[in-house]
Amino acid sequence: MGIIVQKFGGTSVGTIERILNVAERIREEKERGNEVVVVVSAMGKTTDQLVNMAKQISQQPNKREMDMLLSTGEQVTISLLAMALNQMNLPAVSFTGWQAGILTEAVHGNARISNINTEAIQKQLSEGTIVIVAGFQGITEDGEITTLGRGGSDTTAVALAAALKAEKCDIYTDVPGVFTTDPRYVKNARKLLSVSYDEMLELANLGAGVLHPRAVEFAKNYNVRLEVRSSMEKVDGTVIEGEAKMEQNLVVRGVAFEDEITKVTVLGLRNNLTSLSTIFTTLAQHHINVDIIIQSTTEDGTTNLSFSIHTNDWMETLNVLENNKDYLGYEQLDAENKLAKVSIVGSGMISNPGVAAKMFEVLAEQGILVKMVSTSEIKVSAVVEDKNMLNAVQALHEAFELGQHQ
Amino acid sequence: MGIIVQKFGGTSVGTIERILNVAERIREEKERGNEVVVVVSAMGKTTDQLVNMAKQISQQPNKREMDMLLSTGEQVTISLLAMALNQMNLPAVSFTGWQAGILTEAVHGNARISNINTEAIQKQLSEGTIVIVAGFQGITEDGEITTLGRGGSDTTAVALAAALKAEKCDIYTDVPGVFTTDPRYVKNARKLLSVSYDEMLELANLGAGVLHPRAVEFAKNYNVRLEVRSSMEKVDGTVIEGEAKMEQNLVVRGVAFEDEITKVTVLGLRNNLTSLSTIFTTLAQHHINVDIIIQSTTEDGTTNLSFSIHTNDWMETLNVLENNKDYLGYEQLDAENKLAKVSIVGSGMISNPGVAAKMFEVLAEQGILVKMVSTSEIKVSAVVEDKNMLNAVQALHEAFELGQHQ
Repeated sequence: MGIIVQKFGGTSVGTIERILNVAERIREEKERGNEVVVVVSAMGKTTDQLVNMAKQISQQPNKREMDMLLSTGEQVTISLLAMALNQMNLPAVSFTGWQAGILTEAVHGNARISNINTEAIQKQLSEGTIVIVAGFQGITEDGEITTLGRGGSDTTAVALAAALKAEKCDIYTDVPGVFTTDPRYVKNARKLLSVSYDEMLELANLGAGVLHPRAVEFAKNYNVRLEVRSSMEKVDGTVIEGEAKMEQNLVVRGVAFEDEITKVTVLGLRNNLTSLSTIFTTLAQHHINVDIIIQSTTEDGTTNLSFSIHTNDWMETLNVLENNKDYLGYEQLDAENKLAKVSIVGSGMISNPGVAAKMFEVLAEQGILVKMVSTSEIKVSAVVEDKNMLNAVQALHEAFELGQHQ
Repeated sequence: MGIIVQKFGGTSVGTIERILNVAERIREEKERGNEVVVVVSAMGKTTDQLVNMAKQISQQPNKREMDMLLSTGEQVTISLLAMALNQMNLPAVSFTGWQAGILTEAVHGNARISNINTEAIQKQLSEGTIVIVAGFQGITEDGEITTLGRGGSDTTAVALAAALKAEKCDIYTDVPGVFTTDPRYVKNARKLLSVSYDEMLELANLGAGVLHPRAVEFAKNYNVRLEVRSSMEKVDGTVIEGEAKMEQNLVVRGVAFEDEITKVTVLGLRNNLTSLSTIFTTLAQHHINVDIIIQSTTEDGTTNLSFSIHTNDWMETLNVLENNKDYLGYEQLDAENKLAKVSIVGSGMISNPGVAAKMFEVLAEQGILVKMVSTSEIKVSAVVEDKNMLNAVQALHEAFELGQHQ
């Protein structure tokens, strides 16, 4: 008998009926003899509705008050779910972030968990009570309510699993696991039985979307065994742990992709030691995330720099660079929209130098021009025009034999 | 410069537009140089919607979880109102019940405030910040979220005014004050400029509805100066304080009324010293509130007992009495529904013995049969058939010359 942490996302608890369905899943886990801690998100579109109310008051609502507002969403879900379990004669108690002892740093909107005081949860578990914890929220040392930002409920679940030394952490979602690529676009995409933390990090970062990278990182650091599984169907999901147990012989494990990428090019950058760090520090100060970075130095000693950003940040990036033109010291700016990133991911890649070559060969065969390239130990990414994205994904999925075996 | 507590009810904060309107009222008070503490309820029908969700899960939802659920309603309002004030460059901070230091006894659904630790509020006020407190909620010593039951936000406001030694407590509502009777039913009902705590208690208890009796009692005990006023129109309201200053010569100050009353009669009650207390203790254990009680002893030594309850409690009352028939020792039960209570209220009544007589005379002239009577120092109540209620109210309002002077 051990502790199991179960996390159910907003879609899984989107209606009263689904909350009752979730209560059944919890009952099953409890009846297996486990101590159960459940983390839930706000119901369906609740968070969007709350944000919408705030935006009617202010385009930039006070961040402390935003956390106060948003944290009510999860509080509604935990109470309803605890009611449902009590109605089924399963003793259950709901805890807000602060009641669960989830301490965070003093940052509103995007706080990191600094510590979890599990005393209150342990006490309830020892009495056989199921503990339902509000995801996405915590409290500072000064008693201020904070939220954890995007993917916050995943992070809450993993952090609790780590703090409670749980056997595993099950992330229930609206898809049955992690796939070789998005099954909505590639028909014979296959569910992976297991992936490593690093592979999951790349897949999550690259838009697979089922699990937030912060949560995967947390799980990796504390060696928490994760399983992504369906809240609707009762089938095995995808296990995420130190080493992927199955399919070790496969070099490429999945194809990830995302669109709405913009490539920004800075031409004629003054070539000195600090020019690069100055540019990216300036962008970071404006909370602009930069992904791929490519630098080339011409014969006359000036540097051209290209980097990719989310298209949402395009206008602000150009504004920031233009406003700092003298300080940054460059000649000209250029930007290209309507791009997408396609990546192949797999732990085995490091020992297979031919993988990148094969990727470019496949793309060339499809007549797809590669605009930027980025490689890491477990992935190769290519930026292409977004109209070619799905074509590239399908061709790569086929070429690396990721589809279901017939 | 003193501390002013303002309370805005659910209707006053029912939409974003109304919240912005409330923010304006707060600004005016702040600009008069006062330190301002604001207590708000949940927006409009929010509480009903939350209750409705809970009822879809369980007809008798777990009370602890119900408090967890309902307390989110006020938390939404406080954050939105604080955003609105910050947007107007008025520093404001929102506090949940527990952040405001509102300690309650450990009872869910209907807790009483046991103490208020005003330290956090005082600190904010001393920095010139407006403090917005969630009404209706508190926390137990063990860190459990509680709610205060009906009229809870009024009670929060009055308790804060008492704890902070505020100059006054303004209760903003959707009516402009306390009237001689309900102006929806009696055209020439007149707004009272001031009433005493005791008069207000009777008026509130008897269904005037603008202020909860618990809050009035609290105000009386701590001598908090209250004013009931409109959140829409900028006009003087009704001041509630120790002695009504104006209109002292008027014996009857108002006519109150409520319907949905049931009269329960217990026939042939065993006549011993404890029979009455046994019956009412048993009902109290089932949280059934009894209003008027009439007892008569027949010549053969048995007692007949009648009492009035809210019609909502009718079935449960009969169940409780029937299940305890042997223990309580009576012969027969009887119940009459579709009754209403009409009351005349006024501090001057105690020295005017003819007032009750005049009331019965007026009712007799209208051909209205009186089913039960109850008197106190400042009111006389008569239970009549509910179809006669408004007729009785209008006739009494006229007879005691309560209408507007033409």
